[in-house]
Amino acid sequence: MGLLVVGTLAFDAIETPFERRTEVLGGSATHFAHAARFFAPVELVGVVGTDFPDQALRALEQRGIDVRGVEIAPGKTFRWSGRYEADWNTRVTLATELNVFERFDPKLPEAYRSARYLFLANAEPCVQMKALEQVTAPELVVADTMNLWIDIRLKDLEELLQRIDGLVVNEEEARMLTGKRNLFQAARALLERGPEFLIVKKGEHGAFLIGRDVRFALPAYPVEEVVDPTGAGDSFAGGFMGYLAGAKDLRPGSLRRAMLYGTVTASFCVEGFGVEALERLEKPRLEARFQELASLVTP
Amino acid sequence: MGLLVVGTLAFDAIETPFERRTEVLGGSATHFAHAARFFAPVELVGVVGTDFPDQALRALEQRGIDVRGVEIAPGKTFRWSGRYEADWNTRVTLATELNVFERFDPKLPEAYRSARYLFLANAEPCVQMKALEQVTAPELVVADTMNLWIDIRLKDLEELLQRIDGLVVNEEEARMLTGKRNLFQAARALLERGPEFLIVKKGEHGAFLIGRDVRFALPAYPVEEVVDPTGAGDSFAGGFMGYLAGAKDLRPGSLRRAMLYGTVTASFCVEGFGVEALERLEKPRLEARFQELASLVTP
Repeated sequence: MGLLVVGTLAFDAIETPFERRTEVLGGSATHFAHAARFFAPVELVGVVGTDFPDQALRALEQRGIDVRGVEIAPGKTFRWSGRYEADWNTRVTLATELNVFERFDPKLPEAYRSARYLFLANAEPCVQMKALEQVTAPELVVADTMNLWIDIRLKDLEELLQRIDGLVVNEEEARMLTGKRNLFQAARALLERGPEFLIVKKGEHGAFLIGRDVRFALPAYPVEEVVDPTGAGDSFAGGFMGYLAGAKDLRPGSLRRAMLYGTVTASFCVEGFGVEALERLEKPRLEARFQELASLVTP
Repeated sequence: MGLLVVGTLAFDAIETPFERRTEVLGGSATHFAHAARFFAPVELVGVVGTDFPDQALRALEQRGIDVRGVEIAPGKTFRWSGRYEADWNTRVTLATELNVFERFDPKLPEAYRSARYLFLANAEPCVQMKALEQVTAPELVVADTMNLWIDIRLKDLEELLQRIDGLVVNEEEARMLTGKRNLFQAARALLERGPEFLIVKKGEHGAFLIGRDVRFALPAYPVEEVVDPTGAGDSFAGGFMGYLAGAKDLRPGSLRRAMLYGTVTASFCVEGFGVEALERLEKPRLEARFQELASLVTP
């Protein structure tokens, strides 16, 4: 009945124009879950190594996130390191160590198979498909992807597109997938290949929602002090899907509100390293920023 | 009583990724007037050379634009040439020939001095100030500027800032003027130096309005086929101020609607070379796009 996310738990090493941090708790599923937990119970599927501190799992549980689907495998946890340039928009990946994630074979606990809302965080499309196939009757399936899979796993990705309701991409990915430079032409082309709607992430410039019955353009919340943009996209997805799972309503008005909540959770995410700012966040501040954003963008 | 614009009339030579055109009618005042004319009578002050075709002035007049303030001086009309790169965001100025604009000394016809709404298009700040001083009792003065004047005429520009109500800048200019990278910190710093509000133009990413009593973020209208972005900023200003002059209302709700109208007139501007698309435009299409944009951005 709940909201299920399948993705990574990771340790990140992050260099920003101002600071350098190592062993930051991150990963797509972690960010998603920390953002979604404000709205609905979250179930998490992923894999960590034996180096993953039990305390980090307990911290997730304490926030109402179900971690029974986190497998502990022999070896080391996924690690990513990257650097942000002074304009924050340029991100250079310094190293990716897949470690235990390389052989990630998602196995959903029996209790998770009835999930109605499913987020497939960025992973090899065949892994995303394996997870999807274990969910009995999902109502809303949204997937993220990346340029690497568009390059080397396009056929699998095309199959996945036919099985999902929503796709999350950035502008470059939308163009790569369709060969169309104009974002709206690209979006229309993608909607013909399966999904009901598309979310195009534009970072500090906001996000677009383009579906058959809905088009919504939203600027980003103006964060004054960005600390670390890592995980902003997954936090957006967490706020977006969390709100929908809580509201149990997929009509256009609800999708629009979900975009605002996604923008708000992403804005908190970037105010700290990893999930630190989302961990500290409480619902009243989240709601206050939602109201502030609504007033900022309402004509 | 009307809406007055002081700026350039020009001939542009424009290279886009798809086409190359010369002797395109352009200039800041031309673009502004063509956008503003839908909402209020426009009075234009500028200078052209003896090479400027009388027919071009008549075309402005036929659209209700008062050109009695256009001086015809011995010499050639202002000319600009530039190239847009494939991403449309990079614009390279190839040549600027000031010609008669170099000695531009704005002289307002007696009938213009009672203008209530004044737009000072980009020019040397002391020239903008000269025009401003000839207007008896303006209700709303908005000015544009550029990096060059921030570099070499900062003192004059600071004086101007204390005399205007609104300033139109792009992100780079806001940062140059304040030394603050964060746009909202830059905006606050600028509001302390005179203007009541700031419009920050972000091109294809929309625009922000930041004032003492109003903050409004608006994405751009999603134009499917950009032909020539030249003049988009001045067309934005034209739609923005035109709407305000027509509505005779400067309250926050009105400023927000003006931002939408500015976005709409700019979106038509970029669909043709120079003012071609605005020349062809009729009010019902403009209003239809306004409604479309409002629905695109309303949560």
